[in-house]
Amino acid sequence: MTQKTVRDYIRTIVDFPHEGIMFRDVTTLFADPRGLRLAIDQMLDPFVGQHIDKVVGLEARGFILGGAIAHQLSVGFVPVRKKGKLPGKVISEAYTLEYGEAVVEIHDDAIQAGEKVLIVDDLLATGGTAQAGIKLVERLGGEIVGTSFVVDLPELGGRALLEGLGYSVHALCEFDGA
Amino acid sequence: MTQKTVRDYIRTIVDFPHEGIMFRDVTTLFADPRGLRLAIDQMLDPFVGQHIDKVVGLEARGFILGGAIAHQLSVGFVPVRKKGKLPGKVISEAYTLEYGEAVVEIHDDAIQAGEKVLIVDDLLATGGTAQAGIKLVERLGGEIVGTSFVVDLPELGGRALLEGLGYSVHALCEFDGA
Repeated sequence: MTQKTVRDYIRTIVDFPHEGIMFRDVTTLFADPRGLRLAIDQMLDPFVGQHIDKVVGLEARGFILGGAIAHQLSVGFVPVRKKGKLPGKVISEAYTLEYGEAVVEIHDDAIQAGEKVLIVDDLLATGGTAQAGIKLVERLGGEIVGTSFVVDLPELGGRALLEGLGYSVHALCEFDGA
Repeated sequence: MTQKTVRDYIRTIVDFPHEGIMFRDVTTLFADPRGLRLAIDQMLDPFVGQHIDKVVGLEARGFILGGAIAHQLSVGFVPVRKKGKLPGKVISEAYTLEYGEAVVEIHDDAIQAGEKVLIVDDLLATGGTAQAGIKLVERLGGEIVGTSFVVDLPELGGRALLEGLGYSVHALCEFDGA
């Protein structure tokens, strides 16, 4: 009997959030005790033994993963949030979406200069959100150790974008299409 | 020298999100390696040795805590999200806010009948969101082991509400006012 992989726990929802999208739903992975543990352990695997000071999670599913990974490493967790959600002084980055743009923010005192940062999220698509998160961390003087995702959609170009900029990209599985 | 407590790591932001609110900002707790670890360990403390099948976290800061606690327990994590965010089939609960109402949702297959559930969030205020989360879990047949928060604002009545309904409420510290 073959044991389930991380990919096997992920459910595909057709036409969410709008027609033509095959939504890769990681909540079925997170809800399974073995699935969640596999995902966290595998997301960290390439970074074991490296110095990490902070884990940065991208809103909102990146919070679930980032909280677990930061706790496992006994390091701090820092959220990158959508505009207007963080209560303290922030810096912002805008990035392009399919239609229009979005803005993400980080507290301006959340990363200290020279801190080594791991960026985590559930899904790498175009890489726009991840790139914005990286820029926020670097503007505060942080150094990116790497990025870690559950799912990569390679056709959307996020991995090529981030690797082209010199960042390490780790993902546990791939799916075709959007 | 006295070591810092969880409460000492929490920052107060005056007039966020609107005038007159003293916002208790837990991001400074989460960003500190010792702060995050203290918070997770203390949130779990009263439930050690009890059977827990799932941790339910309330969007969005409850995801950071819930991911870490579920991973530490090696159990599954289930998100309760604002309306329209979950991709699969959901059930919903409306609850009253200061002005108007809000709706939260859970996937209808996220909890199995008889599963023991711990509810986690960063802050207990009026208890409206937590009560809605409890109702969602119970409608799916789950049994509430208890609720765990970082901050309790006892003047807002959430603890009294939940304890009056027979639920166990654990919080790491209290602050006055809203």
